[in-house]
Amino acid sequence: MTRFALTIEFDGGPFFGLQRQDNGPSVQQAIEEAARAVTGENAVLHSAGRTDSGVHALAMRSHLDIAKPFEPFRLMEALNAKLRPAPVAVIACEEKPEDWHARFSCTGRAYEYRIRNRRAPLTLEKGRAWHIARPLDADAMHRAAQALVGHHDFTTFRSVHCQSASPVKTLDALTVSREGDAVIVRAAARSFLHHQVRSMVGCLALVGQGQWREEQVAHALAARDRAALGLNAPPEGLYFVAARYEDDKQERTA
Amino acid sequence: MTRFALTIEFDGGPFFGLQRQDNGPSVQQAIEEAARAVTGENAVLHSAGRTDSGVHALAMRSHLDIAKPFEPFRLMEALNAKLRPAPVAVIACEEKPEDWHARFSCTGRAYEYRIRNRRAPLTLEKGRAWHIARPLDADAMHRAAQALVGHHDFTTFRSVHCQSASPVKTLDALTVSREGDAVIVRAAARSFLHHQVRSMVGCLALVGQGQWREEQVAHALAARDRAALGLNAPPEGLYFVAARYEDDKQERTA
Repeated sequence: MTRFALTIEFDGGPFFGLQRQDNGPSVQQAIEEAARAVTGENAVLHSAGRTDSGVHALAMRSHLDIAKPFEPFRLMEALNAKLRPAPVAVIACEEKPEDWHARFSCTGRAYEYRIRNRRAPLTLEKGRAWHIARPLDADAMHRAAQALVGHHDFTTFRSVHCQSASPVKTLDALTVSREGDAVIVRAAARSFLHHQVRSMVGCLALVGQGQWREEQVAHALAARDRAALGLNAPPEGLYFVAARYEDDKQERTA
Repeated sequence: MTRFALTIEFDGGPFFGLQRQDNGPSVQQAIEEAARAVTGENAVLHSAGRTDSGVHALAMRSHLDIAKPFEPFRLMEALNAKLRPAPVAVIACEEKPEDWHARFSCTGRAYEYRIRNRRAPLTLEKGRAWHIARPLDADAMHRAAQALVGHHDFTTFRSVHCQSASPVKTLDALTVSREGDAVIVRAAARSFLHHQVRSMVGCLALVGQGQWREEQVAHALAARDRAALGLNAPPEGLYFVAARYEDDKQERTA
């Protein structure tokens, strides 16, 4: 068996999330089926994150164990050939030691959330960003976000379906910046709760629109109560952008 | 009659181009129908450029003459409401004097051509960029492009369907730069021939892949013969990004 680490990009729009679901197609199913078509084996895909329906990835990290010998580049090419025309692509592939685990070895995860802030509806970014027509104060959002950075009980910002053992997480960074009519939220942590990024962005958007005072974000956090959540941002603006590992110098060789 | 200048963004994918066509839906038709629904008038849309089927726009400039009085912002909102769910949006609207013409007053046009240069197929950028799997030398492309800058007979880079009176144009700038695995070609001129940007990009892509020597771009230009064209780049990577006018300080007020 060889463990192959894959870097995966996908458009989450047509999928019921990354992880296998009973109710519709998933990215995991697409890749596992491609792997079976290529290798004849039933490899299981393990991934750094578990993205929801509609959430995108620019560089999800995953792994598959495959018995048949492959050059990583050839495996990547073969998987991509079988994945077509689904909007999933393996953008890098490399061999890893068998104790490397895409999920359990991952020491850092980063998400980006894209908001387009303008009156006009979206065209090219439809399904790729959250459209907010009311003007957002990105500076106020950034200031309010800083209350969430650090080691906290994030119960307020956690889906009722979250399977994490504890609601306590350390948020390493949460920044909000304006780039023209785009407002970009960037979040980094060792790990996140289910819906955490979308829940944080939802509350920050309330601050940005002046519906919440900046301090209300800190109050919502302190409440440790899902009912204190102002708003859960929609999935289509969310991108999984990076997973970090101890051995990162060797990453993405294919 | 009031002349309203519109700034228009659209995903060219589902359209048979900007201009009205007999064979399928056009951006012009979508906007004219929205304008009729809003005003009850049969206004004709005039635009700075004539983009082909599949070509996108981030900021096309157009105008409509409308008798019914409107605040520009209200007209923009009403047009966008009627345009949904087509991927066309009016992102700005302002009143102009009646001698201002979106096409004839335009003194500069700019296009961007996006190439994604990697082995893996495209996912989120499918239909939004030209996918070239073979490595491109963007520096060589940029050097070769400089032979096209200036006042030249661009017959080689002109569609046989081009309606321009003369093949002689002045290309103000043509740059090629790499941004990660994206290679971006930017072109600016007072005006362009039909297919000129795509034809120039096609030849530069041959240079980038080492299929053409850099000098061959200059030779193709000197040939003044469409048969000397190496390759016409596909439409999906092309974006109309800006139109310039003498009175630009007042632009995009809504």
